Amino acid sequence: MDLQKSPLAPASFPPMADISGVRFATVAAGIKYKGRTDLMLAEFVPGTTVAGVFTNSKTASAPVLKCREYLPGGQARALVVNSGNSNAFTGRRGEESVDHILKAVADAVGCAESEVFSASTGVIGEPLPHNLIVDAMPGLQGALGGTTWQQAAEAIMTTDTYPKGVSRTTKIGDTEVHINGFVKGSGMIAPDMATMLGYIFTDAAIGADVLQALLAPASDASFNCITVDSDTSTSDTVMMFATAQAGNAAPQGVNDPALNDFKRALDEVTLDLAHQVVRDGEGATKFVAITVTGAENDLAAKRIGLSIANSPLVKTAIAGEDANWGRIVMAVGKAGEAADRDKMGILIGGVQVTQDGMRVEGYDEAPVVKHMQGQEIEIEVEVGIANGRATVWTCDLTHGYISINGDYRS
Amino acid sequence: MDLQKSPLAPASFPPMADISGVRFATVAAGIKYKGRTDLMLAEFVPGTTVAGVFTNSKTASAPVLKCREYLPGGQARALVVNSGNSNAFTGRRGEESVDHILKAVADAVGCAESEVFSASTGVIGEPLPHNLIVDAMPGLQGALGGTTWQQAAEAIMTTDTYPKGVSRTTKIGDTEVHINGFVKGSGMIAPDMATMLGYIFTDAAIGADVLQALLAPASDASFNCITVDSDTSTSDTVMMFATAQAGNAAPQGVNDPALNDFKRALDEVTLDLAHQVVRDGEGATKFVAITVTGAENDLAAKRIGLSIANSPLVKTAIAGEDANWGRIVMAVGKAGEAADRDKMGILIGGVQVTQDGMRVEGYDEAPVVKHMQGQEIEIEVEVGIANGRATVWTCDLTHGYISINGDYRS
Repeated sequence: MDLQKSPLAPASFPPMADISGVRFATVAAGIKYKGRTDLMLAEFVPGTTVAGVFTNSKTASAPVLKCREYLPGGQARALVVNSGNSNAFTGRRGEESVDHILKAVADAVGCAESEVFSASTGVIGEPLPHNLIVDAMPGLQGALGGTTWQQAAEAIMTTDTYPKGVSRTTKIGDTEVHINGFVKGSGMIAPDMATMLGYIFTDAAIGADVLQALLAPASDASFNCITVDSDTSTSDTVMMFATAQAGNAAPQGVNDPALNDFKRALDEVTLDLAHQVVRDGEGATKFVAITVTGAENDLAAKRIGLSIANSPLVKTAIAGEDANWGRIVMAVGKAGEAADRDKMGILIGGVQVTQDGMRVEGYDEAPVVKHMQGQEIEIEVEVGIANGRATVWTCDLTHGYISINGDYRS
Repeated sequence: MDLQKSPLAPASFPPMADISGVRFATVAAGIKYKGRTDLMLAEFVPGTTVAGVFTNSKTASAPVLKCREYLPGGQARALVVNSGNSNAFTGRRGEESVDHILKAVADAVGCAESEVFSASTGVIGEPLPHNLIVDAMPGLQGALGGTTWQQAAEAIMTTDTYPKGVSRTTKIGDTEVHINGFVKGSGMIAPDMATMLGYIFTDAAIGADVLQALLAPASDASFNCITVDSDTSTSDTVMMFATAQAGNAAPQGVNDPALNDFKRALDEVTLDLAHQVVRDGEGATKFVAITVTGAENDLAAKRIGLSIANSPLVKTAIAGEDANWGRIVMAVGKAGEAADRDKMGILIGGVQVTQDGMRVEGYDEAPVVKHMQGQEIEIEVEVGIANGRATVWTCDLTHGYISINGDYRS
């Protein structure tokens, strides 16, 4: 099917920094799609460290299982990603496909298989035609360096309607370093984990342990705070690669003050990418930020926020531009976390709608309706228990979601 | 909006038994809807016992809170239900509305307020115009007895497209007794609790404690095993009234063998009503039964079943008649319960699709596609851990759901 570009998409793919030590190549390997690239190879200089977070799914895909196995080595020389087929629920045969692919990449790049990380995204349960990937590898290796960040991001898309990238320049100590990232994802998005394929690259020198300790909380505050449809991919992967080409002194640990700026920049990168995923949510016409305050703790606040963000009734009301705050009350109630009905307050677009457990006296719906007609919806809920706080992000639920998922076999 | 009758609706409202000791009246009180009844009064003979199960929502409605307060008394003389307004999240004012209503009913029927049970269903957060209900009460009382079961069921409907009733005749010991029930519900249906308004009536003599012990497990195996949209009402209520007019000896306890037939009949009544709710699921075009076997225990099986039943991707695939079993694998994986990927098997419409963690050799999709084109969809999933087993029921997710909930303020 032809997918229209999301109305919430950024104007264009952003300018990206140079990250010394990483080169890309892409090709149309013909795995499933016609007339577009579907295979991406990234090669890293020796000494590149790696971190990763993966799906919590009990039916994780074969590439995810292999990434988990090799991650403790901490070294990466290559990343290979195909779209069109997720190689998930493909049994023993799927594991063999991963072995074939990693061997082909290791041969092409000249490294150990344990330094190669892979991912596959697309339809679940179809055997992956790994020969197409293996056969393409020598050509891909020869083409390394001629591919832009945007082209790399495009090769891993499935139902995405635009490529999603972000770039930041920051410092570690006095040394300028860069962080680039790209991500794919628009359906099967739920925040129980790293919810998509996301790749982040830096030219900084950062040991693998520190890199992992940086990536995990940054993912938790971004990728794990978004939801499109409450569904969780079998292939979710966020990885980060540090090529050590910038010349900074390697941080002594995750609490090294030299990392302060870098942490902030990394948080910006992961949050920007996470928001881009929501903005490309299948059928999305509105970007929704939900902030919960006054919960028992931050985790409780996040659970309440996600209960609202995942509620089909809230999401369809937003699609219909209906300021139906009763459904927000319902979603708070079903979250299972403490909420004091008589101290609850709801703001929509900054306008107080309820206070002390009931609609405000003389409630004027007009400014709220006006806010609901915009593309950026803000919902704040105070639940009146303690000081727990969280913000989560989602999109509305529209006819577009039904059309995409009733027709497309993803 | 005009709602088309669900294509999954039964041919007609069933013939209902006479239940001696209960009389109904309904009226168009003008609470919200035009041109239809929206207020129902049931009067019970003295000595009628009562049982109930209610929403687990942390934002339960004012009537639910009051029902909980009076339920331990075990005696019921009246039930009053309005549609069009749920009197939920209406704060102190909502509680006062309930007090006014209960007093008016108690005066009209001639009983204590603690013997009156009420429910309200409809929009959340609007003050309930309780004067309309109070003023209607003398007229309603005068009209008692002239109203059919179907008319009573119709008065409490909101987005329902047909009234839902069921009737069974059974025995306690050697005495013939009857069970009638009706229910409303088609959206905001999730199985964390009694998920709708449901009322069950019997002419049997059954003590309140035994009645409660009968109702709770029957609800759990029926109303708590269905989901339309994973959303949970603030007003969910299932109550059961026993008028003691049939002349049976009151059972000695819930394990009294004289109750064996009655239990079976009650299970049939609750399951039939629960299925009718799913068949009237907002926008539903397919009725879906999902059976999970091989889970760690029955609760784990139910959680996996509900993860499948609540997955928007599974439900849209069913709407699209797409045998996309990969999404079932995904939903099993995200449930968080143990599942052995390499022992998993999926059957659709009785056809083995996967076995031992991958698609069966020589898989022929044709019979599965044919099954998906029907109105009754059967999915079986073996997860390969132990002997836990559960069946849950849901409907598909269609454009109709989006239309109903993007337009209608429920």
